[in-house]
Amino acid sequence: MLRTHTCGQLRLSDVNQNVVLTGWVQRSRDKGSVLWVDLRDRYGVTQLIFEEAKTDADVLSAGRSLGREYVIQIEGLVVERLSKNDKLPTGEIEVKVSKVKVLNPSKLPPFTIEDDTDGGEELRMKYRYLDLRRNPVRESLQLRHKMAQHTRMFLDGQNFIEVETPVLIKSTPEGARDFVVPSRIHNGEFYALPQSPQTFKQLLMVSGFDRYYQIVKCFRDEDLRADRQPEFTQIDCEMSFITQEDILNTFEGLIRHLFKQVKGVELPDVPRMKYDEAMQFYGSDKPDTRFDMKFVDITDLTKGKNFQVFESAELVVGINAKGCSEYSRKQIDELTEFVKRPQVGAKGLVYVQYRTDGTIKSSVDKFYSGDELKGWTDKFNAEPGDLILLLAGEAFSTRKQLNELRLLMGDRLGFRDKNKFSALWVLDFPLLEWSEETQRYHAMHHPFTSPKPEDIKLLDTDPGKVRANAYDMVINGTEVGGGSIRIHDRATQQMMFNHLGFSEAEAKKQFGFLMEAFEFGAPPHGGIAFGFDRLCSIFGGADSIRDFIAFPKNNAGKDVMIDTPSTISEEQLKELGIEVKVKSDKL
Amino acid sequence: MLRTHTCGQLRLSDVNQNVVLTGWVQRSRDKGSVLWVDLRDRYGVTQLIFEEAKTDADVLSAGRSLGREYVIQIEGLVVERLSKNDKLPTGEIEVKVSKVKVLNPSKLPPFTIEDDTDGGEELRMKYRYLDLRRNPVRESLQLRHKMAQHTRMFLDGQNFIEVETPVLIKSTPEGARDFVVPSRIHNGEFYALPQSPQTFKQLLMVSGFDRYYQIVKCFRDEDLRADRQPEFTQIDCEMSFITQEDILNTFEGLIRHLFKQVKGVELPDVPRMKYDEAMQFYGSDKPDTRFDMKFVDITDLTKGKNFQVFESAELVVGINAKGCSEYSRKQIDELTEFVKRPQVGAKGLVYVQYRTDGTIKSSVDKFYSGDELKGWTDKFNAEPGDLILLLAGEAFSTRKQLNELRLLMGDRLGFRDKNKFSALWVLDFPLLEWSEETQRYHAMHHPFTSPKPEDIKLLDTDPGKVRANAYDMVINGTEVGGGSIRIHDRATQQMMFNHLGFSEAEAKKQFGFLMEAFEFGAPPHGGIAFGFDRLCSIFGGADSIRDFIAFPKNNAGKDVMIDTPSTISEEQLKELGIEVKVKSDKL
Repeated sequence: MLRTHTCGQLRLSDVNQNVVLTGWVQRSRDKGSVLWVDLRDRYGVTQLIFEEAKTDADVLSAGRSLGREYVIQIEGLVVERLSKNDKLPTGEIEVKVSKVKVLNPSKLPPFTIEDDTDGGEELRMKYRYLDLRRNPVRESLQLRHKMAQHTRMFLDGQNFIEVETPVLIKSTPEGARDFVVPSRIHNGEFYALPQSPQTFKQLLMVSGFDRYYQIVKCFRDEDLRADRQPEFTQIDCEMSFITQEDILNTFEGLIRHLFKQVKGVELPDVPRMKYDEAMQFYGSDKPDTRFDMKFVDITDLTKGKNFQVFESAELVVGINAKGCSEYSRKQIDELTEFVKRPQVGAKGLVYVQYRTDGTIKSSVDKFYSGDELKGWTDKFNAEPGDLILLLAGEAFSTRKQLNELRLLMGDRLGFRDKNKFSALWVLDFPLLEWSEETQRYHAMHHPFTSPKPEDIKLLDTDPGKVRANAYDMVINGTEVGGGSIRIHDRATQQMMFNHLGFSEAEAKKQFGFLMEAFEFGAPPHGGIAFGFDRLCSIFGGADSIRDFIAFPKNNAGKDVMIDTPSTISEEQLKELGIEVKVKSDKL
Repeated sequence: MLRTHTCGQLRLSDVNQNVVLTGWVQRSRDKGSVLWVDLRDRYGVTQLIFEEAKTDADVLSAGRSLGREYVIQIEGLVVERLSKNDKLPTGEIEVKVSKVKVLNPSKLPPFTIEDDTDGGEELRMKYRYLDLRRNPVRESLQLRHKMAQHTRMFLDGQNFIEVETPVLIKSTPEGARDFVVPSRIHNGEFYALPQSPQTFKQLLMVSGFDRYYQIVKCFRDEDLRADRQPEFTQIDCEMSFITQEDILNTFEGLIRHLFKQVKGVELPDVPRMKYDEAMQFYGSDKPDTRFDMKFVDITDLTKGKNFQVFESAELVVGINAKGCSEYSRKQIDELTEFVKRPQVGAKGLVYVQYRTDGTIKSSVDKFYSGDELKGWTDKFNAEPGDLILLLAGEAFSTRKQLNELRLLMGDRLGFRDKNKFSALWVLDFPLLEWSEETQRYHAMHHPFTSPKPEDIKLLDTDPGKVRANAYDMVINGTEVGGGSIRIHDRATQQMMFNHLGFSEAEAKKQFGFLMEAFEFGAPPHGGIAFGFDRLCSIFGGADSIRDFIAFPKNNAGKDVMIDTPSTISEEQLKELGIEVKVKSDKL
């Protein structure tokens, strides 16, 4: 090793040792008679000292010529600091330098390598290797490492076997778009990159592997949105001979293990909520349960009073923003503007202020009497000081709008603390969802999810009402994982494909191998997959997954550091038997 | 859980317990009055018993109707067996069945699910999920799981951080062919799948990550040979602030840890051999050191005696097959045929039999006297009973031919026992190798490998003689890993690209980001990558890597189970902006 110690290692007990350190020059302070240099590596920072009176002149001059981010090797004596720095684990000592060697100089970095950098997003992505030197980014990736370690430790301990499934698989039309890979040996044919190892993990269950897991890269060629990545990582799991209850218990165990080991947090038992209930009370299948603020439906109380908006509404529903009764006109206008934004889409906002003096004021008090409004506040269990916010309209979209408002109020009231964690199971998802675009039902989870047996009869009459044995884990209002009990017999799987609009020939071409496998003794099985990037970001208390991925793509799916995607040679194209035909509407 | 115990769990101490088991019907033996069924799961086999006199008639009849590979759930009482089976951990008990439920029937499998199956390769690949049920295949994948676990445990313990590098990267012309992925968002542009995370792990070192590892999928679009896979897995590692010695010690530590933990084998310190020495004494850069049989060069002793073959030969070299002096004419003819096969390519074989009676007999004794032949056997340290086998010709190819003969003799003499393990470091590889095809030098390892400083001066005058700071680990004659100390400054990297025939513009387009990174304080660093599939197969004592990969491709790069690669839709092609142009010479 080019060093005897790391930059995070030396303590008072090491005083008088001669040591060799390597690292990067974080900063220098030259006081004339004394020069201090902070030397940084992954493990910490150690202060180096050069003294005009005592340090060899060549060494001092070498020390003075060190620039930011130079990589150096120094030799020196560990001494006790005169003025200690209790913020640094090495803050009680410094190293009196007797030799300096520049291992590699550095140009001036395009942004400062500090916790708060002056570099913009674009620049930091281009020089990602410099951005990765900053503590918050490095710590995010160290957290990810720890998450992976403890995930494996937990699952290994539960007899799960890690099995690698292939990356070069087959394109299937269901779900999101596949990335494809042209075959050179078989011109005109393509592999596809997996959106998930779904069929392979089910085949492993047919093989009797019993308990499988993998921390695995998956790929989706979607139109990119902020914080979506074309490649992402899943904790992918599957179990045989289980009920849904076993899956919930096992993976609740995993999440609680991770909170304990990685964050030191004792997560309580994870509560469960039905999908219908989540939609009814939170207008979302991933409610943020760090705070209550449940929806209250007052439709019945609003009818027959000539207020046209409520009169014509399928649903009048609201939340109680506790302690907000004294919101100013301006504050309420802001909320109204918020719900009227096209992204939210409400027509307006009705409020009822239950003032601290006990009086009630509302934007609709010309339609409703004080008693009537008091009836509303009672339904909300409101107290003096509370503010009721109401939306009205078509039931489903109104709930979605109110969900946005609820989250905004949660933010405003400080309920969405990133260091507080609330996990939730959402159960009994619908099996199918209607797509306006394709005018047919699609699998809400995926085509391998089993319907609840008692609902199968509804498949022909009311497909949207069929519930699935499907579940999501939600933490702090974000879906971090989801899964289902699978279909494990050919007949049911064939029936599902029929209902999803696959012809028998299509189903056979795409999934024939799986249906055939179901005929050779497929055990009952089910599983779950967690979005690992997202899970890490929640553990790290971050909004974006970007810093939990070492080399992320930007929102256009580009890696601007290595400059990809990029053109390839004519020779490569020829070997692959393909021709580029840039579409005219893209020029 | 649908079971109270697994099929590998019950012991004598469980007798009189009522249990529920699930699993697959391995086989049934119906003796009329008694029916035995072996129930199998991943954990073992448990014998079920149905008795005509005691079992409920319906249950007995259900038991009789069970076919091979049916998945069933049974309830029953654990009883002590009358005739115990000491080959089975559960062999002291059996379960008296009181309830049977068929969870899923099975068609008759196309081959038997036994340790030795009657299924051919093709059929087993098509029904891989059934092949995976067989013990040897499942055990191979369980071994792989254990290898991965212990690899991570060791590296975690040494402060390595696991970092995931991207799969959608950039195509580079150096090395093997890339698989590419057309971009839909950026028509006409492509991602490439990584042949290794090489540049990314080096960037992580520039970032100060200090110690990185990843068990990671890599991809190479090569013309497939037996036992090559288009996707394969590497244990990929990199370290900063190290010398070659540190790398060798660290990863020798890993391999010894794996042998200890996975095989219970105490591997001795791994010896080291220079590349030149390996070529000289074994004719291979990956000598099988389970046995000695070193090459002996007797060129000098053969000259001036009018034996034209030796006279004109650059090299006369041989091995001593100890104890083989009494080989028959037929046996020696076989060896001669072997070396003359086109795959080996020798012109002929000369032998010297040092017979057990002390006499010497040779195929060239009309050219050489008894004393002269005795001089040869002395040089081989041969004893009565030994057989000297000699090849002659151009030095490099003759050594390669003799390597093949040495391995054959090693097999014949039982020296290549799969349960014996001999590891070796091969050091000081050449930096460059000449390609007849492209008529230029290529990087033997890769373009990022550093030359030995003392050899740099030879780059212009004798490039083939420049040695690299590069090393391979060889186990039992197979290269299982290789790596190098990297270049970490822009000037040297630029010089290397020049010598590899990159123009400055090409180097910049392909690797500009890396050369730029080297200007921002890149630390000295180096690393290694192990071929994980191969390493597992050696630990498993297998010749093929096939069974250590859950879902391998066949030799044509196809997965015949899911049928990929395959055609994709016109719509997909259109969105990707490409057109398939099947080459006419492929039709």
